[in-house]
Amino acid sequence: MSGTLYGVGVGPGDPDLITMKAAKLISNAKVIAYPAPDSGVSFARSIVAEHIANDAQEIPMIVPMRVDRFPAQTVYDREAEVIAGHLASGEDVIVLCEGDPFFFGSFMYLYNRLADRFKSDIVPGVSSLTACASRLKHPLAARNDVLSVIPGPASDEEFKARLSMGGSFAIIKVGRHFSRIRALLEQHGLLERAGYVERATLEAEKVMPLKDVTDDCAPYFSMILIYDGEEPWS
Amino acid sequence: MSGTLYGVGVGPGDPDLITMKAAKLISNAKVIAYPAPDSGVSFARSIVAEHIANDAQEIPMIVPMRVDRFPAQTVYDREAEVIAGHLASGEDVIVLCEGDPFFFGSFMYLYNRLADRFKSDIVPGVSSLTACASRLKHPLAARNDVLSVIPGPASDEEFKARLSMGGSFAIIKVGRHFSRIRALLEQHGLLERAGYVERATLEAEKVMPLKDVTDDCAPYFSMILIYDGEEPWS
Ligand SMILES: C[S@@+](CC[C@H](N)C(=O)[O-])C[C@H]1O[C@@H](n2cnc3c(N)ncnc32)[C@H](O)[C@@H]1O
Ligand SMILES: C[S@@+](CC[C@H](N)C(=O)[O-])C[C@H]1O[C@@H](n2cnc3c(N)ncnc32)[C@H](O)[C@@H]1O
Repeated sequence: MSGTLYGVGVGPGDPDLITMKAAKLISNAKVIAYPAPDSGVSFARSIVAEHIANDAQEIPMIVPMRVDRFPAQTVYDREAEVIAGHLASGEDVIVLCEGDPFFFGSFMYLYNRLADRFKSDIVPGVSSLTACASRLKHPLAARNDVLSVIPGPASDEEFKARLSMGGSFAIIKVGRHFSRIRALLEQHGLLERAGYVERATLEAEKVMPLKDVTDDCAPYFSMILIYDGEEPWS
Repeated sequence: MSGTLYGVGVGPGDPDLITMKAAKLISNAKVIAYPAPDSGVSFARSIVAEHIANDAQEIPMIVPMRVDRFPAQTVYDREAEVIAGHLASGEDVIVLCEGDPFFFGSFMYLYNRLADRFKSDIVPGVSSLTACASRLKHPLAARNDVLSVIPGPASDEEFKARLSMGGSFAIIKVGRHFSRIRALLEQHGLLERAGYVERATLEAEKVMPLKDVTDDCAPYFSMILIYDGEEPWS
């Protein structure tokens, strides 16, 4: 009997925002894998560190950190085979995923390599999408609004087409695209309504109107939200 | 000292998908409010029933159930004042919200009525958006895809404009709009890729390719997802 591959969302950063299901799975896990930077600690692991058993076997998947992180295919090829070894020998493997595993997560790179060979289960988590809205104290979207989630690397044309259509917006993966995105929002008359959230629910969290951000760049863990509701940003 | 208004997300249905933070707040709550139908049990309450203390004071907010639930303004006017009474007397009030409070939730109707008078805190929850993707075993969106969340009551014109632009899609509040939406997806060549999820993470859950759904109507708790990835729906 092979083991099961678990993709487990661990939420946006606050350890209290993991689900009961994630806490149970992680506490009982014998094999735990997670993305990790070339140096320093794994963000996903740090969120749930208190739940990991001392004798759990850990598989840090070292993915080079860049603002636009393209999947390091060779890393995933190799780590997928390490994980496949555990699964084939009957052990379950818990893969930690920041936020939710299937909301723009890198978990899919492992999942694509393993899901047709092994049983799998995805445990959804609190996504940064709703966590950022909670910190801005603003609905993400409401009633019959369309909500568009746009990744920062989208082209100017893509942004213009989407912004012209109206609705509510969440712009993720802002990073080095920050100035360009701010200019595009200003052109569409959306700067005044936009909110900015950096490192939501973490100690270094920043929450402010976008127009008050003075830097020309934003960290990887930041998001811009524009709510198409009656209440203006305040 | 006034109390704090807590908007607490309780996830899509599985009691294990509430956060540790929600569990703690609910266990310690002295006053708990939640939406409830005219007859039958409150869905949000049922998810967390095991955590509610016996002596907690409960405020069911009776909102008439319809496929397109418009806010019953008079209900919210009245319940907001009941809650305001508790807050003014120094008691915290926990408001239970299915999924996440600020993802198309009715919590905003209370929030709008109380947030400028009282302290508030929003506790994000696992949204049905990512829960449905986890049940379909499909990323919601990935890489630099745009994800559009479209409420079922949107007009044909709105659907056509959005679907033509491409990307990944989540269609919520499907209900009685089901046949019309299916026809629109077929016109845009998206029927084959679309997945359907009903009552995600609950016992009566249904998960299937949209093309295999034989009914002409869908319940309120259903969603259609279309993933713009390389992997087709399978
Ligand atoms: C590759 S996506 C992964 C999202 C993750 N799977 C989730 O569900 O939140 C990374 C992007 O999510 C957003 N993000 C993740 N965590 C965040 C946080 N704590 N605060 C603000 N934004 C965050 C940022 O926009 C970041 O560029
Ligand atoms: C008013 S919205 C509220 C969404 C909620 N605040 C959340 O974050 O999931 C209601 C819509 O969410 C979707 N939904 C909520 N729970 C669901 C479930 N368990 N399964 C499928 N869809 C669900 C349906 O599309 C439904 O029409």
